[in-house]
Amino acid sequence: MHQLYGDPISGNCFKVALILHLTDRPFELIEVPVVKGAAKTDAYRALNPDGRVPLLRFPDGRLMGESNAMLCSLARGTAYRPTDPVLEDRMFELLFFEQYSHEPNIATVRFWKAFAGVPEGKADVLADKENAGRHALSVLDRGLQGREFLVGDALTVADIALFAYTHVAEQGGFALGDYPAIQAWLARVEAHPGFMPMPRLFADAPVATSMLAA
Amino acid sequence: MHQLYGDPISGNCFKVALILHLTDRPFELIEVPVVKGAAKTDAYRALNPDGRVPLLRFPDGRLMGESNAMLCSLARGTAYRPTDPVLEDRMFELLFFEQYSHEPNIATVRFWKAFAGVPEGKADVLADKENAGRHALSVLDRGLQGREFLVGDALTVADIALFAYTHVAEQGGFALGDYPAIQAWLARVEAHPGFMPMPRLFADAPVATSMLAA
Repeated sequence: MHQLYGDPISGNCFKVALILHLTDRPFELIEVPVVKGAAKTDAYRALNPDGRVPLLRFPDGRLMGESNAMLCSLARGTAYRPTDPVLEDRMFELLFFEQYSHEPNIATVRFWKAFAGVPEGKADVLADKENAGRHALSVLDRGLQGREFLVGDALTVADIALFAYTHVAEQGGFALGDYPAIQAWLARVEAHPGFMPMPRLFADAPVATSMLAA
Repeated sequence: MHQLYGDPISGNCFKVALILHLTDRPFELIEVPVVKGAAKTDAYRALNPDGRVPLLRFPDGRLMGESNAMLCSLARGTAYRPTDPVLEDRMFELLFFEQYSHEPNIATVRFWKAFAGVPEGKADVLADKENAGRHALSVLDRGLQGREFLVGDALTVADIALFAYTHVAEQGGFALGDYPAIQAWLARVEAHPGFMPMPRLFADAPVATSMLAA
């Protein structure tokens, strides 16, 4: 069975749990509670020196970091990962856009506002990330105009990657009502056969152990 | 001919110029001088709403953003992009690590210190990025121990992506002498047949036009 080191509040973990579910791979959750700093402990860093979640353990024991890399790996050979060169190019472009311009802003603002609190002295960093997050949402909204999904005409890992933190962006104070193409697209992703919402994906997964339990 | 919208000081542009060169695709440079803010103009944002360089125009006119996505695209079908699943997974993992944990720290510190100046009021952001950059270099150094190249036993786009800002990290004040495995690997990348250094790649490219010329 696959094991996912992660935290149910993390959109990056949600991405991986969703593709595991959509590709019929049951998984075990190993809890790494990020608000409690569990991803920065020596025990976790021995597994993932980068100190981030998720981390995936394949059934053969191999470990892999980086949520969008896991999406590409777990979707290999399925319709969720197009192989047509033009579609694949667009998929890669969106996956890197998500990790560079979207996630560091939207996910961080949400994490601070909804979970961890804004760190002392970071008010200006917060404001910069709010501006950059709104810009990323406007780029995404424009990219979705006239389209059903981000790449080709069906759900791919690019949708899963960008859905993850967009659908909870209001927890960071981002007003999704400003982005009508995004709102319609979120509903289409949620209507995909086999889609499962963030809390339920983890509620159903057996919890093997917690990185803070020892 | 491919056209590369970019700036010769950008490591992200260097990556793409190098894979174009290694795959025998001559290209034309369209200068977008980032220190002068050319990537944030309306004219440039009409082409690339994200406001970053590089941007690639394929011979058929198609546009593509995100340097690491371009690496995957331009290396398709070559030895620079492994297709073995385990090697491909590692390649993806490193490409996303580069854009999330390495480039935003090392490239930004270098850009501020060597080119644009540290923005007013960003001294604490600079310190955070210096710390995070050193951590990324230590993760990279550990990943290179006992290895010739990052993925498998030959040069891949993962090496190109991480070489780009690592080899100029000292321009941002990072002490590469602290990372012996990185130093040996930089020399191996530079010894790869067909390798061309950053300034020469652009010195040889015809300049079509400048985004600031009009």
